[in-house]
Amino acid sequence: MAYELYYWDGIQGRGEFVRLALEEAGIKYIDVAREPGRGMGTGAMLELMKSRSEPHIPFAPPFLRDGDLIVSHVANILFYLGPKLGLVPADDKLRHVANGLQLTITDLVAEVHDTHHPIATSLYYEDQKDVAKARTKAFICERIPKFLGYFEQVLHQNPEGSRHIIGKALSYVDLSLFQVIEGLRYAFPKAMKAHDSNYPGLNALHDAVSARPNIATYLGSKRRLAFNEDGIFRHYPELDLTP
Amino acid sequence: MAYELYYWDGIQGRGEFVRLALEEAGIKYIDVAREPGRGMGTGAMLELMKSRSEPHIPFAPPFLRDGDLIVSHVANILFYLGPKLGLVPADDKLRHVANGLQLTITDLVAEVHDTHHPIATSLYYEDQKDVAKARTKAFICERIPKFLGYFEQVLHQNPEGSRHIIGKALSYVDLSLFQVIEGLRYAFPKAMKAHDSNYPGLNALHDAVSARPNIATYLGSKRRLAFNEDGIFRHYPELDLTP
Repeated sequence: MAYELYYWDGIQGRGEFVRLALEEAGIKYIDVAREPGRGMGTGAMLELMKSRSEPHIPFAPPFLRDGDLIVSHVANILFYLGPKLGLVPADDKLRHVANGLQLTITDLVAEVHDTHHPIATSLYYEDQKDVAKARTKAFICERIPKFLGYFEQVLHQNPEGSRHIIGKALSYVDLSLFQVIEGLRYAFPKAMKAHDSNYPGLNALHDAVSARPNIATYLGSKRRLAFNEDGIFRHYPELDLTP
Repeated sequence: MAYELYYWDGIQGRGEFVRLALEEAGIKYIDVAREPGRGMGTGAMLELMKSRSEPHIPFAPPFLRDGDLIVSHVANILFYLGPKLGLVPADDKLRHVANGLQLTITDLVAEVHDTHHPIATSLYYEDQKDVAKARTKAFICERIPKFLGYFEQVLHQNPEGSRHIIGKALSYVDLSLFQVIEGLRYAFPKAMKAHDSNYPGLNALHDAVSARPNIATYLGSKRRLAFNEDGIFRHYPELDLTP
């Protein structure tokens, strides 16, 4: 049975990190809310989350269904899929290292979300815009250099070479780093232009990932949604700045 | 060789979720920054994080050293230790379910941190106090019910019984839930008093964990640091409120 990915329709969001892994592996999967003809939208997803009988319901999307197992949280889904898709070193220890890297990406993504929603997810961006400016300034000036500087360094200290963040072949962490760079460039073009020359390794990794045949095909397809202001990486020009 | 836990001295913080698992298992471990006689403080930890040669350096503490392997991020450390300490169901699928639950706790803990640091970690609390009030109000009124209501429901829908969040025996997720309840009660006593009756299952779980012999011994020992205003769960009376 094909993997079922449950996530919102209309945004890349956190689901995109899972989609990239499935697309790179070239296997069949069902993007439940977007499946043509199933007419399910996000109904099936919300129904499952609200179930009063299903064991171990997930807190939030994305989650993956594989038969009777439901795996929630991006890093957990990728930890689960990694070996099945050949997207993580086979060594069990390196799998935990990959998971640690992916969880740092999780933290970065949460901070990106909070640049536009620093007070409450339940409020509109417009109602927390001033605080969003302050938080984004700190994010651009302090956090982007800290996170990207870290990944750049890990890349350079990979004993198997700096073409990949871990091991000697592509892993799901490389795919996620591509998405982080892509998303940050969309959201904060001025900031990323200024930061750009500091991260030659990450930029090369980004370009290598986007040139992979399955990824290139995916990025050119209708399955790849455009970034927009309902997702995690949002471009609000008033938040962007040159550090 | 004993496990080495690398974390800040002086606070429970995120390290506490790992300490609780090691203490419950009753095994020897080295809390590196606090080891008497080693005189290391956090020096060894920072040195490792700043290494320009070590492969796969961690982004932030806590991290665990097991021989030549360094595992970072609380959920990843617990995923790694769980089977070794007998603190997770043996079934591989349930291990991923446990990890999903633990990652929801990770998200909750990050939101607790942001109640007192909503704009920037680099600023003092005093310099972001007004925004902290707004963020905390949303956290208390919307997020605590959402998170704890979720865990309460998962507890009640555990096919093996509601004494544990997963499976029929104690897991590291139960220990972490104890710590979450304990921390929230410390940080937001008014809020938690008002919310209290909504979470009978979680309260019973909290009490059962604190009564376990190894945990009770640990909580009464000097190894258990008191909550304080340098940690994640901070009690600032001006932030607490009755929802």
